[in-house]
Amino acid sequence: MSKKVAIIGIGQTHFGELWDQSLRDLILEAGINSLKDANIDRNQINSLFVGNMSAGRFAGQEHVAALAADVLGVNAPATRCEAACASGSVAFRAAYTSIVSGESDISMAIGVEKMTDISGPGALTSLAAAGDQEWEAAIGLTFAGLYALIARCHMHEYGTTSEQMAMVSVVNHEHGKNNPYAQFKNPIAVQDVLASSMVADPLHLLDCSPITDGSAAVILASEEVAKKYNNPIWILGTGQAADTLALHDRKSFTELLATKLAAKQAFATAGADRKAIDLLEVHDCFSINEIIALEDLGFCDKGKGGKFVEAGSIKVGKELPTNTLGGLKAAGHPVGATGIRQLCDITKQLRGNAPNQVKGATKGLNLNIGGSGATAVVNILSSDIGD
Amino acid sequence: MSKKVAIIGIGQTHFGELWDQSLRDLILEAGINSLKDANIDRNQINSLFVGNMSAGRFAGQEHVAALAADVLGVNAPATRCEAACASGSVAFRAAYTSIVSGESDISMAIGVEKMTDISGPGALTSLAAAGDQEWEAAIGLTFAGLYALIARCHMHEYGTTSEQMAMVSVVNHEHGKNNPYAQFKNPIAVQDVLASSMVADPLHLLDCSPITDGSAAVILASEEVAKKYNNPIWILGTGQAADTLALHDRKSFTELLATKLAAKQAFATAGADRKAIDLLEVHDCFSINEIIALEDLGFCDKGKGGKFVEAGSIKVGKELPTNTLGGLKAAGHPVGATGIRQLCDITKQLRGNAPNQVKGATKGLNLNIGGSGATAVVNILSSDIGD
Repeated sequence: MSKKVAIIGIGQTHFGELWDQSLRDLILEAGINSLKDANIDRNQINSLFVGNMSAGRFAGQEHVAALAADVLGVNAPATRCEAACASGSVAFRAAYTSIVSGESDISMAIGVEKMTDISGPGALTSLAAAGDQEWEAAIGLTFAGLYALIARCHMHEYGTTSEQMAMVSVVNHEHGKNNPYAQFKNPIAVQDVLASSMVADPLHLLDCSPITDGSAAVILASEEVAKKYNNPIWILGTGQAADTLALHDRKSFTELLATKLAAKQAFATAGADRKAIDLLEVHDCFSINEIIALEDLGFCDKGKGGKFVEAGSIKVGKELPTNTLGGLKAAGHPVGATGIRQLCDITKQLRGNAPNQVKGATKGLNLNIGGSGATAVVNILSSDIGD
Repeated sequence: MSKKVAIIGIGQTHFGELWDQSLRDLILEAGINSLKDANIDRNQINSLFVGNMSAGRFAGQEHVAALAADVLGVNAPATRCEAACASGSVAFRAAYTSIVSGESDISMAIGVEKMTDISGPGALTSLAAAGDQEWEAAIGLTFAGLYALIARCHMHEYGTTSEQMAMVSVVNHEHGKNNPYAQFKNPIAVQDVLASSMVADPLHLLDCSPITDGSAAVILASEEVAKKYNNPIWILGTGQAADTLALHDRKSFTELLATKLAAKQAFATAGADRKAIDLLEVHDCFSINEIIALEDLGFCDKGKGGKFVEAGSIKVGKELPTNTLGGLKAAGHPVGATGIRQLCDITKQLRGNAPNQVKGATKGLNLNIGGSGATAVVNILSSDIGD
């Protein structure tokens, strides 16, 4: 049996267009919030892992982990981890592994992205670097374009409708309403989504997650340490997998193989099955991706994700509450921070004090995707330590 | 006692201006060379860690680890690790930790940088992102500028001379002569260094490591697996430390605190002392940094590094052979690959079949620096498994 690791602290900044806050300001605020939440001193941190996709292009700053250690006053080894929009999750896994290996008793994983106010190329150009530069980005294929191809195939193969995709955004905005950190708190209707500008057919503006500044942090501890703190939330299982970088190299456009592999690994290490999961955080960078996530994670049959959403099953209070605080669409998507924000939101639910609290929730699962599915990370958290 | 981990395979590309090879070509060549050297199949790799500083700015490509898994056909979790010019070393440490934690039996760490033929800002601008963007790069302080400040202080405080710094480059070129992968194989004299263009006073062109394309890979294995292979080289100790990102926040300009902390940790985990070390690989991004490294690692007294070099003690055949295959200056400095290249070169020496073989060498140490010393990694390798 592998060593047990728990989340003992969470913290984040507001997500949005934060014109008054720089990259270092964001790191400082989220990091300090997580230290306060855990009620520990920064000197107790044994290692620091920073999830960040593209501060080099967005802010002219690489070596972001050294910056984080510096501004937080954490005197510990500091490493940046990157896997495009799954950067937060690979930083989290590095912190987890550091504790399992015995190198650290307490480790901080902090995700950050400063996407507005950029010094380099535009945000969409920078984000395209998550795909294959030589075969996708160089010919003008943006991420909206990539997911539009995926959406069109899903509609063709399974009869998924624009209304079903729109419903994903509608529910996410409904959930984001009570989240004080969310970028968007306004309710929207299916007709609003369908009437919004077409970005990449069939994806409308309101099918797309926004450009966001923000940071989120979690503090992890070994079993021995975590048991001394209130409300540790345990990492029951974790999985990570890779797929081809470019979409055209895959057998199917309508499933993400890496999600399936990562989920299989996470469920196997957790020794849990899907019925035990009370809520999900999934990667709704574009509405279609939430539908595909529900299918690839095994919570509904392949091709039935649209109908699952249409039936309202993903709302808080229903069968499988998903993105209970707004997901990427409403909470915002500072790419390097998203995976950590997902873990913060699940932790709030499992502590029992979330806005939109899912009653009696004890287990939650997150799925964080890098690129168009070349990286997938799945984690299963629990309020109980498990076997 | 921590689990034992060994290097069972090494591989690299030529280092230089490789106009015919893209980022993916470099990864492919180094990765395959390391698999061949280890005599294993790519399907045996359980995890992949990529050291890369700035492919986003140099080549418009983030998500480099997914690219590497894709081109190498490695079906395993893939994470990029970054700490500026110490990116290779933090990827190496992630692979090491993955094995110690039990997550992997075999892991590949591959470093890569494609610095010529760039799509974004110039190489020096991109490299400045390793320093503090807001306090250093934004006012035009390049890395040559930062190390020039360090060199000037060292000259002032300890009487270090331009001739002594030049001697670092002279010895590195002498050592690079027999390295088939080296960017520069031409011998140079102290007078050549002093007569070369002034880049940032007191650093001349030939005090500076070059802009380089290249990739290097190591394959690590657990004790159980490694013992089945020929010539495993054991990782006796490893250490990593952080310091302030900006130079102006430090107490001293003439020592790198992170080096001292990382070395202390590496020697402690190795249970070895300095007398046991037969050869060094240190981070001679600028000649002054090799002198400071010798001091901060404790191989000569503070302020005596210049004299140590002047006496020829760092040459193969003398007291402490250093950068035996040319170091960053002559072998080249593809920033994300350098830390891994250092480990490849030590491995060759400890296997006993290096060009410029150090007779009877059983233990070697490498020091890889990120930025102006905000990150330092020290590893101690041995041909014996140790206690």
